[in-house]
Amino acid sequence: MPYVNIKITREGATPEQKAELVKGVTDLLMNVLDKDPATTFVVIEEVALEDWGVGGLPVAEYRKTLAATPGPRPR
Amino acid sequence: MPYVNIKITREGATPEQKAELVKGVTDLLMNVLDKDPATTFVVIEEVALEDWGVGGLPVAEYRKTLAATPGPRPR
Amino acid sequence: MPYVNIKITREGATPEQKAELVKGVTDLLMNVLDKDPATTFVVIEEVALEDWGVGGLPVAEYRKTLAATPGPRPR
Amino acid sequence: MPYVNIKITREGATPEQKAELVKGVTDLLMNVLDKDPATTFVVIEEVALEDWGVGGLPVAEYRKTLAATPGPRPR
Amino acid sequence: MPYVNIKITREGATPEQKAELVKGVTDLLMNVLDKDPATTFVVIEEVALEDWGVGGLPVAEYRKTLAATPGPRPR
Amino acid sequence: MPYVNIKITREGATPEQKAELVKGVTDLLMNVLDKDPATTFVVIEEVALEDWGVGGLPVAEYRKTLAATPGPRPR
Repeated sequence: MPYVNIKITREGATPEQKAELVKGVTDLLMNVLDKDPATTFVVIEEVALEDWGVGGLPVAEYRKTLAATPGPRPR
Repeated sequence: MPYVNIKITREGATPEQKAELVKGVTDLLMNVLDKDPATTFVVIEEVALEDWGVGGLPVAEYRKTLAATPGPRPR
Repeated sequence: MPYVNIKITREGATPEQKAELVKGVTDLLMNVLDKDPATTFVVIEEVALEDWGVGGLPVAEYRKTLAATPGPRPR
Repeated sequence: MPYVNIKITREGATPEQKAELVKGVTDLLMNVLDKDPATTFVVIEEVALEDWGVGGLPVAEYRKTLAATPGPRPR
Repeated sequence: MPYVNIKITREGATPEQKAELVKGVTDLLMNVLDKDPATTFVVIEEVALEDWGVGGLPVAEYRKTLAATPGPRPR
Repeated sequence: MPYVNIKITREGATPEQKAELVKGVTDLLMNVLDKDPATTFVVIEEVALEDWGVGGLPVAEYRKTLAATPGPRPR
């Protein structure tokens, strides 16, 4: 009876995408650990950009500093 | 000094009901483990239906599949 | 389908006491919000004293500072 | 930069199975939401059976009550 | 690669104050444990007063009971 | 009355270092948001390397892949 909590930045995930996450995680736990989907909970939490920090900065600021350097930006 | 986190689907719990949860959990921890209410925190989080999955589906979809079968529906 | 997480300091809670917590919280959610026990999860986590801080100190140190003053000590 | 927390009962998941969960969840977030694996954290927590309750009972007790009735047992 | 979750009551913390928390926690983990800021996540969650309980009461009620007694009120 | 949860990989943090984290986070919340230390909880959780994933791999594996490339390794 797994409980999975997914925290992502709030940037427009649609209900359809959330449903894909729910299905994907539930299938994964069934396939890898034989967990029963009926008792697998998946809770998605979207966090405002100002409430998520990385590199010592709020995400939006952090991305600006990365934008000045080569390589992919974290999402 | 317990910390209790209660996650429920957002379906209209009133401030009075939340106060009952806070009091009930705090009393329980005092009665069972002799915990001091003054240092018992209870945090309630309501989660939108589209953000809670069970059975590999968002809650609202899951309930529809159950509605076609006998037995109680999960709340 | 609530999910409840209870964090307490590790100080000898017995399996029987944990079972009381599970039953008490589940009954509370059924009585207050009509939640189905079959889809109510309760997860208890015991935290070592050195890993829990309050008042800017690890719990054991904090209690010593309180022991020198009147009033109940937090548990 | 997602953060995913997976809580399961402690029943012998191997390091290989955990690695499958990490890879599966990370791939899912990349495929569905275009999230960067390098900033996707997955934390797995195994919970002792006596610390997980469902149906108002510790898991082990709950399974015994289900074992006397037809249908699959929750894992 | 630490993950830090800060839960506070929702009482008007500004984006600037949140940025201070992010920077402060990230610096702390770098200074104490040599953690890399680039892989240190800080997630702040603000909780409505009606959803936070202490002393067996929602915070707002609890503060009223303390207001009638001497000493500092919890924030 | 903040609640702070710090998750780090289990790699030998000492009780003294944990006490520094507790004090540092508590001071930060007092200085930035005027929070009362007496009702500030800090809970530290150490996670085994096999239970923490990043980049789609358990941490230990992830570090090996980074070791073959220039730049700092995440801690």
